[in-house]
Amino acid sequence: MSDFQAPRGTSDLFDQDMRTWQLIEDVINQFMHVYHIGKMQTPVFEHTEVFLRNNEASDVVNKEMYTFLDKGGRSLTLRPEGTAGLIRAVAQHKLYSTPEGLLKYYYFGPNFRYERPQKGRTRIHHQCGVEYIGVKSPIVDAEVIHLGVQLLQAIGIDDIKVLINTLGDQASREHYRGRLQEHFKPFVGELCEDCQRRYTQNPLRILDCKVDQNHPSFTSVPSMNASLSEPSQAYFKQVLDQLGSLGVDVEISDKLVRGLDYYTDTVFEIISTSKAMGAQSTLLGGGRYDGLLAAFGGPEQSGIGFGMGIERVIVAAEAMGITFDNQDEVDIYVLPLDGHEGLAHQLATLLRQHGYRVEMDYANRSMKSKFKSAERLNAQVLLFVGENEATKHVVTIKDTTTQQQLEVSFDQLVDTIDQLFQQKQEKHHHD
Amino acid sequence: MSDFQAPRGTSDLFDQDMRTWQLIEDVINQFMHVYHIGKMQTPVFEHTEVFLRNNEASDVVNKEMYTFLDKGGRSLTLRPEGTAGLIRAVAQHKLYSTPEGLLKYYYFGPNFRYERPQKGRTRIHHQCGVEYIGVKSPIVDAEVIHLGVQLLQAIGIDDIKVLINTLGDQASREHYRGRLQEHFKPFVGELCEDCQRRYTQNPLRILDCKVDQNHPSFTSVPSMNASLSEPSQAYFKQVLDQLGSLGVDVEISDKLVRGLDYYTDTVFEIISTSKAMGAQSTLLGGGRYDGLLAAFGGPEQSGIGFGMGIERVIVAAEAMGITFDNQDEVDIYVLPLDGHEGLAHQLATLLRQHGYRVEMDYANRSMKSKFKSAERLNAQVLLFVGENEATKHVVTIKDTTTQQQLEVSFDQLVDTIDQLFQQKQEKHHHD
Repeated sequence: MSDFQAPRGTSDLFDQDMRTWQLIEDVINQFMHVYHIGKMQTPVFEHTEVFLRNNEASDVVNKEMYTFLDKGGRSLTLRPEGTAGLIRAVAQHKLYSTPEGLLKYYYFGPNFRYERPQKGRTRIHHQCGVEYIGVKSPIVDAEVIHLGVQLLQAIGIDDIKVLINTLGDQASREHYRGRLQEHFKPFVGELCEDCQRRYTQNPLRILDCKVDQNHPSFTSVPSMNASLSEPSQAYFKQVLDQLGSLGVDVEISDKLVRGLDYYTDTVFEIISTSKAMGAQSTLLGGGRYDGLLAAFGGPEQSGIGFGMGIERVIVAAEAMGITFDNQDEVDIYVLPLDGHEGLAHQLATLLRQHGYRVEMDYANRSMKSKFKSAERLNAQVLLFVGENEATKHVVTIKDTTTQQQLEVSFDQLVDTIDQLFQQKQEKHHHD
Repeated sequence: MSDFQAPRGTSDLFDQDMRTWQLIEDVINQFMHVYHIGKMQTPVFEHTEVFLRNNEASDVVNKEMYTFLDKGGRSLTLRPEGTAGLIRAVAQHKLYSTPEGLLKYYYFGPNFRYERPQKGRTRIHHQCGVEYIGVKSPIVDAEVIHLGVQLLQAIGIDDIKVLINTLGDQASREHYRGRLQEHFKPFVGELCEDCQRRYTQNPLRILDCKVDQNHPSFTSVPSMNASLSEPSQAYFKQVLDQLGSLGVDVEISDKLVRGLDYYTDTVFEIISTSKAMGAQSTLLGGGRYDGLLAAFGGPEQSGIGFGMGIERVIVAAEAMGITFDNQDEVDIYVLPLDGHEGLAHQLATLLRQHGYRVEMDYANRSMKSKFKSAERLNAQVLLFVGENEATKHVVTIKDTTTQQQLEVSFDQLVDTIDQLFQQKQEKHHHD
């Protein structure tokens, strides 16, 4: 029955794909640990106002939100992105008054966008993001961008390029908005419907319109650079300098404005340079935002962050032929004989309690099936538990590498297994 | 503004609470690893039919679901529980045809119930659960229950009791339903509205009604035991025997029927015996289900699983005075002097790249504030980077335990820090 399928644009994750996912999550958690960035978890849905805010001109929040009324008649929205909820929480719990000056958080979870499903674009996608709030400093900007680069490299994705731009401060942006409106004024009727709206609400967004990018007016667009205030120019230069000291190569991209409207100053994207990625090449993107915390009732503090699409990163990694250590393996496989499942299970439990990854046959299958399972799971050691073993209180161990077999008493089992695995590890180190 | 609060009945998780949560998640992941139980992640929402199914009489799915139409007019529901989606996925992807006979999965994620918020009952709560599918064996039942016990103990919760019951097979249940209807027939008009519905749809659920439990008819309720078929009795005895071999104490609880309607045979709950928990004492509950996979279009295979409420477990742990190792600590704190933030940051980055957890002052605060931060984060080592250091290409290290201070050149920094932390570790082992 078609109702018993995952909803369109969503998917289930299990087995090999899930293990890849968990490897990536482990890499992320480890980086966040050494960078001393605490995790934050906000609700999957928020009051709709949290996403509407001052964001009316953003395409994401205009068309693509899952919005519904709860039974009390309140409008709720499944989060389309991670930053708004996190900053809402920082404002609500007054976390901004930290004595450290700088607040650092990361998140990892599902985002929801009602869009036409295609490769690498799903209705539920997962994002990991970081937010640094409270200190506006080129060092902070550089750290956040560098962290993104390192995360991707640690996952194995080396063919990347960092695109960076500055939108300048409030004054620079207003100046540039004016210049863009002036520039597009003669053509506005020829642009797409979205861009006609953007013309009034946020003309910067016209620059990354996919529909209009071949319109003749796009060839002579005024440069942002000429609108930048002196402090904004100096700030951007310092960001670039610090990135240089950290060994991060960047490419300045004049037209990079990013999809959300709250960005100011530094914006950046990390893209895959692999041809296999086509149009879906953005792996990670972010920027600095000045007014967001204040929009949620907090003080006028600046922040910077990025979001990284987990599904997109996995697609990129696979396209680039990266192999993950995601085999399904166990240390020990227990084979019950002659119906001695109960005893076999007690011994399997004992070994698990000593930290070994143990699987057994619960289904009373044929010997052939049991051996096949052990082989499929690349078990290092087999354990046979049958009549003979039950009466003599011994167990038969087989090392699948050396093919050696030995009998040990129940109370010697753990010690013997410990020794066996220690030898294997030493052997492995010598090889 | 009140709109910028987390929705009622939901919460944000950060800092100390988040670290406790992560510790618990680590414990869970480690257990699932040694038990060779793979993780599965299903969408946060499903087609509403996935939860309605044959479950019309269940309170959870009747009143408390977050159901909404997507923009295509399809009815979607935020999952109220974890099992249905997982079994739907097993059916959809035909995972049941595993050569291992037994499928084992766990999940960890948010569930949604529109209910009146109270302590330990929230509108978004998180659940970790396991499902074993494809083999109906007392050993499997015992393993699943034992796993639940061990998980709670590993988290530190020892004051627990395992309640267990059997609902028998289909024949036993039908017999018992008849006897219950017979018993309640004279009183049905006196029972609550829910129980009047349950009387027809699923009279077993009357037994755990919180409204009616003091009604006189409840004192003489017929026992399930008398309705059990012989195979069901034998099966239950084997489950109890295997639990005994594993050292799990249980209490047979005649009236335990569990809140969802798909259970057959073994059902169980693990409750906190701490007085502080009051009415919210159930930490984990589950049972065996025979028809669920078939209801989703799969074969007639049996399964068993449990769900554990993470928030509930944390409340229980705190009520019992369990302390978690959730301090906010770093290895090294870097103090930039005289505006040498850039250089300080490069050295901090270098040490992070070598696995150290490093924090620094990004905000150019006073020396006093920097020292306070280092102390607050219990930094083992301080690093001073100033004018003197920049010109001489050296850095000053201070061990906060011994108060010893030394100067090292940049290229000796990592080696020196490695030695220092190795000494600290050895010292720690000797203490």
